[in-house]
Amino acid sequence: MQTIRIGLVGIGTVGASVVAILRDLEAELLRRADARIEIARYASRRKDRWEELGLDPARGTTDPLAVASDPDVDVVIEVMGGVETAREVVLAALAAGKDVVTANKALLAGHGDEIFDAADRAGRMIGFEASVCGGIPVIHVLKRSLASERIRRLVGIVNGTCNFVLSEMAEAGGDFAGALAEAQRRGFAEADPTLDISGADSAHKLALLSILAWGVRLSHTSIALQGIEAISDVDVAFAAELGMTPKLLAIARRNDDGRYALFVGPCLVPARSLIGRVRGSLNAVLIEGEHLGPFIMTGAGAGGMPTANSVVSDVIEIARARAGGVAMRHPTGFPEDKRLEPELVPFAEQEEEFYLRFSVPDQPGVLAGISTALSERGISIAQVIQHGRSVGQTVPLMILTHEARRGDVAEAIHAIDAMPFIKDKAVIMNVIKEVP
Amino acid sequence: MQTIRIGLVGIGTVGASVVAILRDLEAELLRRADARIEIARYASRRKDRWEELGLDPARGTTDPLAVASDPDVDVVIEVMGGVETAREVVLAALAAGKDVVTANKALLAGHGDEIFDAADRAGRMIGFEASVCGGIPVIHVLKRSLASERIRRLVGIVNGTCNFVLSEMAEAGGDFAGALAEAQRRGFAEADPTLDISGADSAHKLALLSILAWGVRLSHTSIALQGIEAISDVDVAFAAELGMTPKLLAIARRNDDGRYALFVGPCLVPARSLIGRVRGSLNAVLIEGEHLGPFIMTGAGAGGMPTANSVVSDVIEIARARAGGVAMRHPTGFPEDKRLEPELVPFAEQEEEFYLRFSVPDQPGVLAGISTALSERGISIAQVIQHGRSVGQTVPLMILTHEARRGDVAEAIHAIDAMPFIKDKAVIMNVIKEVP
Repeated sequence: MQTIRIGLVGIGTVGASVVAILRDLEAELLRRADARIEIARYASRRKDRWEELGLDPARGTTDPLAVASDPDVDVVIEVMGGVETAREVVLAALAAGKDVVTANKALLAGHGDEIFDAADRAGRMIGFEASVCGGIPVIHVLKRSLASERIRRLVGIVNGTCNFVLSEMAEAGGDFAGALAEAQRRGFAEADPTLDISGADSAHKLALLSILAWGVRLSHTSIALQGIEAISDVDVAFAAELGMTPKLLAIARRNDDGRYALFVGPCLVPARSLIGRVRGSLNAVLIEGEHLGPFIMTGAGAGGMPTANSVVSDVIEIARARAGGVAMRHPTGFPEDKRLEPELVPFAEQEEEFYLRFSVPDQPGVLAGISTALSERGISIAQVIQHGRSVGQTVPLMILTHEARRGDVAEAIHAIDAMPFIKDKAVIMNVIKEVP
Repeated sequence: MQTIRIGLVGIGTVGASVVAILRDLEAELLRRADARIEIARYASRRKDRWEELGLDPARGTTDPLAVASDPDVDVVIEVMGGVETAREVVLAALAAGKDVVTANKALLAGHGDEIFDAADRAGRMIGFEASVCGGIPVIHVLKRSLASERIRRLVGIVNGTCNFVLSEMAEAGGDFAGALAEAQRRGFAEADPTLDISGADSAHKLALLSILAWGVRLSHTSIALQGIEAISDVDVAFAAELGMTPKLLAIARRNDDGRYALFVGPCLVPARSLIGRVRGSLNAVLIEGEHLGPFIMTGAGAGGMPTANSVVSDVIEIARARAGGVAMRHPTGFPEDKRLEPELVPFAEQEEEFYLRFSVPDQPGVLAGISTALSERGISIAQVIQHGRSVGQTVPLMILTHEARRGDVAEAIHAIDAMPFIKDKAVIMNVIKEVP
């Protein structure tokens, strides 16, 4: 029986969970992977954690690079986070002939091509199931099970913080700030939640998912994004009136002309749909293809144990492949020289239906002004709701549009926001009626 | 670049879809699998289909075994269905050193151990993603992505016919016969739907999923099953009153004592849950484990293209493994000698909450008789609903129990069904409140 000697870099939440699973499953892993998996070296600056986790101090170091190049290590698990040092560790490990498992989404979203190419060149494996959607095996399903599918659309709820905040607003009521505070209290949001709330984290994940779905070369910087910070209880109430609920969605679509449209932002989806029912900090990924139709996976998208589970599943796969004496190449599921430069639909040209919400005085001429600004740009109105209160007061006015170009809508909103009677900036969401 | 020479056995619905996908994706498969995949031989008795599908007649035969032993074939795809000949084809192909892909659930449920052992011995691969839940990649997720998980419970909606019938009854109203006729009209049910409606098909699938989840040796004959034919519009209405909806579920649970409880039958689940929202002919599998918590996959569980998609994904995996010069062994994800004999909880000892519905006259003494029969066997009542109509008429009486042993409930029902005032046999469903 082979022994897989792990070099564990980082023993924070995920690293500690990896240690726990490897210990807890020792007997099971002997059965599953036909291998003994042992932590041969580990690196962490925090020496107090060494003892806390009951790790052998003789195997510890504070230098991550020492683990990456250690001859007694077969597989390096990088769960230290951050980008620069993590990048050095991963590249050094590959160069030293080790297989690598990483949970580092920021690293791959920023330096994926470099790292994937390096793994391919070195003939080593790199597992990164844990880098997107925690415990949901979306990476492997795209690489392997849907390799035969012609995917048309990916729709993801890929940020647990945003999903918790929006679910909380929809179910418990209350405004954005209160829901965010509750998320922070319950450990679902960072003290500085900007990366999540802005949609940036979702864009990182969407870029990786798109690379795996279509074998394209893509950076998250090509993805237009909109955060959820402007969504208020007024919008949640309008959504409910429409039978819908707001979700932060990451959407990638392959059009019939072969171009890709990518977007991250708040969207209204039917409240009774499966996607609408994905609540709390859960994540979900909808994959729609020509053969399979809609396919959804949902589960824990973050957290120590779910993420560590994905890390260990990658280690098992590596163990199985090593037992066969071969490396499973092509980290993205495509030979690196066969990944294509995608043609993207410019953001302004993407066509969607929109939810627009204005804060206006309840007075004559307001609706005329707004609707003229829309119609002048060819934007057609599908529905208007305004619950009148008393003349002179500020009231919310909601407009649903038919399909319209994002650029036209942005221009119209720009013009409307400048109108003298407008009290607050307009709130914009996509309306996505067609989800299972 | 390697060429993978396919021997296709069977060109019915699934086989024709395999042909269509291989043709349609030719360029994409060159990218994905780094291989040319061509249909070198095929077998079908129906020569009219040869032409209809535009297949080269020189490569056709009416003898499936000729394909299985043809030296010009690398991978045999068995999509002929049936058991006996299919078994011969698969074993002959493995013996001749070919890898095999099969969509044949009945074959694996009946002869899985023999076939898995033969593949392991021959050092060949056998892909069977298509055999359970059509396009949903549950086989591979269990074998690979959740190999690191300690699974506690599997809950599947794994039969599209039953799910369509029950969804139709819940949404369009009407009785069982009408919903079944609609399912037949729309191609979701066979002319003889017994295998589906009885739960037998679901038991086949549950046996395979349990083997993959826990590495046990298990036949579908060990699974107690109950069909949906007794469920009526009365039950659907009671379910709605309770905020629940009926689903045919296949459930496998690993108890803390290491024993397994398996069951297939109609169950009430919360109507607003994700599982309750899986509608029409969709399938879903919920996997609950210690690390990941609840994880759900849902999508098309049957049909030519979804099933063929899983077949082709297995072919791609085989092509990738062959490119590395190695066979991915262990069809179940466990070395065959490490699969264990599971200890099963006897059916009578399984504990569940129950929905019981009786047809009784609206007269004194009925409830007393029934509730005495229950309490004598230690079965505690949680809720009773009877909407009185007029004295002397037959009315439905619904009782929800607290957790009770199946054996006790069966005995009580046996006694109650024999009571003189009982008009029809009781309807029994499990009540499963705890699903996401």
